[in-house]
Amino acid sequence: MYFYKEDLINMIVPDKPDPAAAKVLQETLGGQFGEMRTMMQFFFQSSNFRGKEKKYRDLLRAVFLEEIAHVELVQNTINQLLNGAGDSNGVGNAGIDGAPLNDAIKDANPHHFIMGAQSSLPVDAGGNPWNGSWVYCHGNLVADMLNNVVLESTGVLQKTRIYEMSTNKALRETLGFLIVRDNAHQNAFAKALETLGVEWGKVFPVPNYDINKYPECKKFVDMGFHNALFNFRLDQDLLGEIFNGQTPSRNGGDLNIMQPPVGYPVPQMPEMPNEHSPGLYDLNN
Amino acid sequence: MYFYKEDLINMIVPDKPDPAAAKVLQETLGGQFGEMRTMMQFFFQSSNFRGKEKKYRDLLRAVFLEEIAHVELVQNTINQLLNGAGDSNGVGNAGIDGAPLNDAIKDANPHHFIMGAQSSLPVDAGGNPWNGSWVYCHGNLVADMLNNVVLESTGVLQKTRIYEMSTNKALRETLGFLIVRDNAHQNAFAKALETLGVEWGKVFPVPNYDINKYPECKKFVDMGFHNALFNFRLDQDLLGEIFNGQTPSRNGGDLNIMQPPVGYPVPQMPEMPNEHSPGLYDLNN
Amino acid sequence: MYFYKEDLINMIVPDKPDPAAAKVLQETLGGQFGEMRTMMQFFFQSSNFRGKEKKYRDLLRAVFLEEIAHVELVQNTINQLLNGAGDSNGVGNAGIDGAPLNDAIKDANPHHFIMGAQSSLPVDAGGNPWNGSWVYCHGNLVADMLNNVVLESTGVLQKTRIYEMSTNKALRETLGFLIVRDNAHQNAFAKALETLGVEWGKVFPVPNYDINKYPECKKFVDMGFHNALFNFRLDQDLLGEIFNGQTPSRNGGDLNIMQPPVGYPVPQMPEMPNEHSPGLYDLNN
Amino acid sequence: MYFYKEDLINMIVPDKPDPAAAKVLQETLGGQFGEMRTMMQFFFQSSNFRGKEKKYRDLLRAVFLEEIAHVELVQNTINQLLNGAGDSNGVGNAGIDGAPLNDAIKDANPHHFIMGAQSSLPVDAGGNPWNGSWVYCHGNLVADMLNNVVLESTGVLQKTRIYEMSTNKALRETLGFLIVRDNAHQNAFAKALETLGVEWGKVFPVPNYDINKYPECKKFVDMGFHNALFNFRLDQDLLGEIFNGQTPSRNGGDLNIMQPPVGYPVPQMPEMPNEHSPGLYDLNN
Amino acid sequence: MYFYKEDLINMIVPDKPDPAAAKVLQETLGGQFGEMRTMMQFFFQSSNFRGKEKKYRDLLRAVFLEEIAHVELVQNTINQLLNGAGDSNGVGNAGIDGAPLNDAIKDANPHHFIMGAQSSLPVDAGGNPWNGSWVYCHGNLVADMLNNVVLESTGVLQKTRIYEMSTNKALRETLGFLIVRDNAHQNAFAKALETLGVEWGKVFPVPNYDINKYPECKKFVDMGFHNALFNFRLDQDLLGEIFNGQTPSRNGGDLNIMQPPVGYPVPQMPEMPNEHSPGLYDLNN
Amino acid sequence: MYFYKEDLINMIVPDKPDPAAAKVLQETLGGQFGEMRTMMQFFFQSSNFRGKEKKYRDLLRAVFLEEIAHVELVQNTINQLLNGAGDSNGVGNAGIDGAPLNDAIKDANPHHFIMGAQSSLPVDAGGNPWNGSWVYCHGNLVADMLNNVVLESTGVLQKTRIYEMSTNKALRETLGFLIVRDNAHQNAFAKALETLGVEWGKVFPVPNYDINKYPECKKFVDMGFHNALFNFRLDQDLLGEIFNGQTPSRNGGDLNIMQPPVGYPVPQMPEMPNEHSPGLYDLNN
Repeated sequence: MYFYKEDLINMIVPDKPDPAAAKVLQETLGGQFGEMRTMMQFFFQSSNFRGKEKKYRDLLRAVFLEEIAHVELVQNTINQLLNGAGDSNGVGNAGIDGAPLNDAIKDANPHHFIMGAQSSLPVDAGGNPWNGSWVYCHGNLVADMLNNVVLESTGVLQKTRIYEMSTNKALRETLGFLIVRDNAHQNAFAKALETLGVEWGKVFPVPNYDINKYPECKKFVDMGFHNALFNFRLDQDLLGEIFNGQTPSRNGGDLNIMQPPVGYPVPQMPEMPNEHSPGLYDLNN
Repeated sequence: MYFYKEDLINMIVPDKPDPAAAKVLQETLGGQFGEMRTMMQFFFQSSNFRGKEKKYRDLLRAVFLEEIAHVELVQNTINQLLNGAGDSNGVGNAGIDGAPLNDAIKDANPHHFIMGAQSSLPVDAGGNPWNGSWVYCHGNLVADMLNNVVLESTGVLQKTRIYEMSTNKALRETLGFLIVRDNAHQNAFAKALETLGVEWGKVFPVPNYDINKYPECKKFVDMGFHNALFNFRLDQDLLGEIFNGQTPSRNGGDLNIMQPPVGYPVPQMPEMPNEHSPGLYDLNN
Repeated sequence: MYFYKEDLINMIVPDKPDPAAAKVLQETLGGQFGEMRTMMQFFFQSSNFRGKEKKYRDLLRAVFLEEIAHVELVQNTINQLLNGAGDSNGVGNAGIDGAPLNDAIKDANPHHFIMGAQSSLPVDAGGNPWNGSWVYCHGNLVADMLNNVVLESTGVLQKTRIYEMSTNKALRETLGFLIVRDNAHQNAFAKALETLGVEWGKVFPVPNYDINKYPECKKFVDMGFHNALFNFRLDQDLLGEIFNGQTPSRNGGDLNIMQPPVGYPVPQMPEMPNEHSPGLYDLNN
Repeated sequence: MYFYKEDLINMIVPDKPDPAAAKVLQETLGGQFGEMRTMMQFFFQSSNFRGKEKKYRDLLRAVFLEEIAHVELVQNTINQLLNGAGDSNGVGNAGIDGAPLNDAIKDANPHHFIMGAQSSLPVDAGGNPWNGSWVYCHGNLVADMLNNVVLESTGVLQKTRIYEMSTNKALRETLGFLIVRDNAHQNAFAKALETLGVEWGKVFPVPNYDINKYPECKKFVDMGFHNALFNFRLDQDLLGEIFNGQTPSRNGGDLNIMQPPVGYPVPQMPEMPNEHSPGLYDLNN
Repeated sequence: MYFYKEDLINMIVPDKPDPAAAKVLQETLGGQFGEMRTMMQFFFQSSNFRGKEKKYRDLLRAVFLEEIAHVELVQNTINQLLNGAGDSNGVGNAGIDGAPLNDAIKDANPHHFIMGAQSSLPVDAGGNPWNGSWVYCHGNLVADMLNNVVLESTGVLQKTRIYEMSTNKALRETLGFLIVRDNAHQNAFAKALETLGVEWGKVFPVPNYDINKYPECKKFVDMGFHNALFNFRLDQDLLGEIFNGQTPSRNGGDLNIMQPPVGYPVPQMPEMPNEHSPGLYDLNN
Repeated sequence: MYFYKEDLINMIVPDKPDPAAAKVLQETLGGQFGEMRTMMQFFFQSSNFRGKEKKYRDLLRAVFLEEIAHVELVQNTINQLLNGAGDSNGVGNAGIDGAPLNDAIKDANPHHFIMGAQSSLPVDAGGNPWNGSWVYCHGNLVADMLNNVVLESTGVLQKTRIYEMSTNKALRETLGFLIVRDNAHQNAFAKALETLGVEWGKVFPVPNYDINKYPECKKFVDMGFHNALFNFRLDQDLLGEIFNGQTPSRNGGDLNIMQPPVGYPVPQMPEMPNEHSPGLYDLNN
């Protein structure tokens, strides 16, 4: 069973509204290699795990647990980018005759304004809805772990590309955190394959980049987050039997399990009267 | 952030392998009105919530948290139904010449044997993959709550229909538990609408059935689960400001918040050599 | 604007419940070349028509109007095939312990029992939902008319194949009627292309079959339905400027416009208590 | 059977070409909560209706009939918005070297220029094709009616959001008419639930807006269209047994059945030589 | 079996980077009437051909073989349009702080920069992925050939519309070549229907355009490419039994089979460090 | 450009009609990890390749070329399994009253009889159409090669599972051949990663099986096909710079490039009058 403490796993850095940035960041939420995919893939792989080697199951579940928090982080970041968009007179107060949303749909995902009340959606950067066929769970440990390595590597690859699309600080802080964490998860699944005999040489990290290249990443590297898994278990597990010793990454260092970050407040979002959201302001009067 | 204790929210009752039952039970997992939909819908609604009325957000999150455990329960039930299917000589030991999976695909979802290693998939009873467009999150509190009522009502409706398709005890125990819980969640969202002025008369529960009709439900009704929400929070919330007082259901009783069920073991699943799952048996020798 | 008289365009012939027949007949309702496609394709082509040659627009709308009635006819036929399925003790009265739906899902579409209350769905024989991308409306008259010829030809082709899959009289009567009407519509679009200079030789009907081969067709051929369009207009149109003179079909005869069939009663369907449909029986007591 | 008189249910107000407005208005045509969905949902619900309470079936069919006219109205509005787009030298006469469509694809749906000949498509604002899985028809009267309330409420909610995206008069006139009619249909299904015991309090209309806020709506409210159903039947029905007495809306007033609007001309659209539509101008010379 | 010589079937003409042109040209690659569709449709029709009339099978395969080269040509053209996009300081060298991809996503398909490393994708102009349901292969020769005529006609129709959207020379050269070749394939399938008795009059080419209207087409018409099929067979076939004599097109001339074009170099694409593609530059140092 | 010699890459072994086997074998043709996916993925990866390391591009193209022949082989195998299905009186001669297709749809894909004329379709074992979003082509060489390893490994894994579902010799011969070839392609991409520094230990082949376990495989292993790539180039390439030396597989041996198999006849398929395929029998009389 799953328990919750109302904390985000990283902070939301305020910056100006940016619906174009929100559009592309959707890839990281609802795309084929986004956080909803990683969350659901590791959920199915851990629930469907066969055999006695429980340590692999525990590894899968450990990453799954963090991915739920990643989904929540990206949802909140997209919401931050959409708050105040399309509104020249302050949040939610533009009049009808100004067609206040007119500008917002340029280079934006129109569903952010039609379906979501200027908030996140389970779709990718092209507006395609999340699809269950993306979940890879074939029940063969080697195949599943190799796919997980590809999934995490593609996650980093896409995030570095999206990072360079925008200088918006809300977008970059979140991507910086997630790039480091994807690196840690890449290490986790690569390490699991090392227990099966693979030696990776210098192939990781994929893509081939300097993890300190992005300023937003560096502070997390300094905290050792690229070589750590967080412990979200309220009971004991066998995670440490796999995730220990030398990292499979060129970046070096030892793998270790640590407590989750301290936690950051979940933002209270402003009302959006022009979106009729939440739409209770009159009823309560 | 999300924390985990390795417990199922209800027990898995063993019964004979039954891939046809597994096929239809997929609707409850990956269907348009299944547990993955409820989980993701309430996740998006709580993350995207606007305004100060935090009690509604807390309600949405409370149900979301339980839905994660529901997904895990249905995954494990489907796995139980598939364990040993297609195998006349004991789990996983049938030889090639017997084409041991031959019978299993009659009336079954062939992907249970080709993609999943005889385990659950994120698809519905017709094999259609889960789709993000099903998530309803329009940010208008009344519309969202009405949709949630429809979603939970349809969940019960489908589950009673699937229940009657099979006498398999693993399927019926899980559905019995979920029918009662859907009833509680129907009550939760109906109650939220009562705070906005709606009087439901005798319209609930939808569908119009006797909740004690199914023997597997009765024990949970006796425990009051149809009028309860479970508390999965490690901090404080405002859930009780909505979920209290008289139930909106014809069944009567008062609403209350209680601790989660005691928890049941997550099954260790047998290896499936003929599915090459987990596929490590030789490497370990 | 659209007006309605509660009449089916052909009769529903009773026969035994047959969910496997209902499953394959869905192709004729919600398939890529089914009646929903023809209905929507001719709707878009008539609304989007450009230029002064109004007679083509009137032709498109004439066929569109009949296709609405075709959709309704196939919906009712599928419902007839599903009434009483999965129920050994009379319609809707089987008890729980009998798992009355158990047999019904063999070779059936499980969604007929989970989503529809044993009634029709907007999906094809494989359970794939109807999809708007199937509508061909490119605004070029020749291309659109050629596509319409392919669409109607494929409609007949599929219907003859489905006809031979089952001896159920409800299925065969409806398909017999629709095969003759598709023939008439094939003639209509082929004739439109004759006005643009094409001579078809002996290529029609496609497929190459004897239209009297199926006993259910013959009575409609005797009534001239294969060379007729029905007049559903409450005002005047220019349909007769295209649809007149010799048929483009090897079957010979002259084309003419006639009044619609006399009309047949829309069946009142039995309640299905085990499907909770309509689910009002208790409330009304 | 279905009959037709060549009239639009409301007028098309001319304004300048606006492909960005056409793009977002597609949501109202082919979106998950657009007019094609309402049309097909009420078609399936009326054809699949079970039991003797024919008045509900008649209600469903009454709304279905109007929705066909709504689809046609939105198709014509989108066409109006696309006529003359991408053409600086007058409709259809721009030469090749000017790349006349070049500007048109900025912020537009490119399929409006590639697939449709600058005309409407069965897709939503994001270009996703209409999908049959959106049709809700579970055969349980309460569940179906609740879903219909959500569907009509979401329709109004989206239309008010799209209205504010553009000042184009063609778009606003059509949306103004449809907002009032969705309000009437919301009232119809809410009233049906009142016959089953629900008291709605002040919850309707959803969203919580002043129906006279939009100038285009006011004239229809003055005509009583928000509390009326139109009679498109050529025979008798039982619609009046449900749709009578006090409205369930805060706006007040009595429900009544009236004749359809007088009807407005279906526009003849200009040829588009650069789209090769209809492509007959040379053949006819 | 299939053999390859590293040659493009037409040249790639260099012009400036143009991601908006790349976005719309995707329709020609991965759209419902694009080159992937023609390639796969003729592949399935030739493999699934029934009966002794091998000449039709050979015709289908001849066109299939050329379509593989068409897919490759459009892939390379899209890549040419994307090389250097989003990069003011030379290919791949822009720094992070410039957010070098920022401009590239305006009016572009964001997946060209997130999924493809600025290269082609199997999607259409709206970003919808290629879909197998588009392949028409019903096994009835007349229906299949009629559909092929519609497919090739729609291909030309769309290509002329896309041609007029942009003056980019890389886009126009490729479309000019493909328009002429689609014309030849239209002739091929029309001719096949002539062997079955159809006389086409002046209906072809569809759309009704002057094939010399586009300067890029004229040189290929002068070479007779509009009335030719290329011979990609390493053994003998019966293609000439159908494809000979007078063209079915108004453009006149005789049909003939010729050797493929001489072949043009496959471009070597520049590295894209900011896309981490190929991502080997450091490892090799 | 692509050239063809009318030869299958392996033989079609006749056995009895078996539509259930045809249904599951569709996974190998049109499934997410089937031959159409491998064909298109390597096509896009080779066309989109960036940089000077042409040897990797040549490797990708070499495998692409063979995959076209694999698609053709599986199409022909499915056709062989469907020839004569649903026909008790000899191919294609059953009369109407016998409902000759009746039995065929049990456990079959109904589209094999409605859309295909008892022939192959671009869909998977569940009837889902092939989808372009499955193609992985991110342009990062390491990520692409890792995904290719997963793709080929999953291909073998699924094929061994499907092999055990049926004793039909047509199905088993084709799968036996493809399992060995997938092994060779797994080796090829694993070897490419070895050039980048990875040491695989004993992880390959995935899944962990004895390649001689299936009798149909053994003859190909004896011919060295598991360690070979076939040369389909009519010009020179650099394939040998990667594909040489020791295999990365536990099975041992050296990698080498050899000529393609001698080639086997493409079957001429019988006419299917009851499917109206090809439908020319009367016209030719």
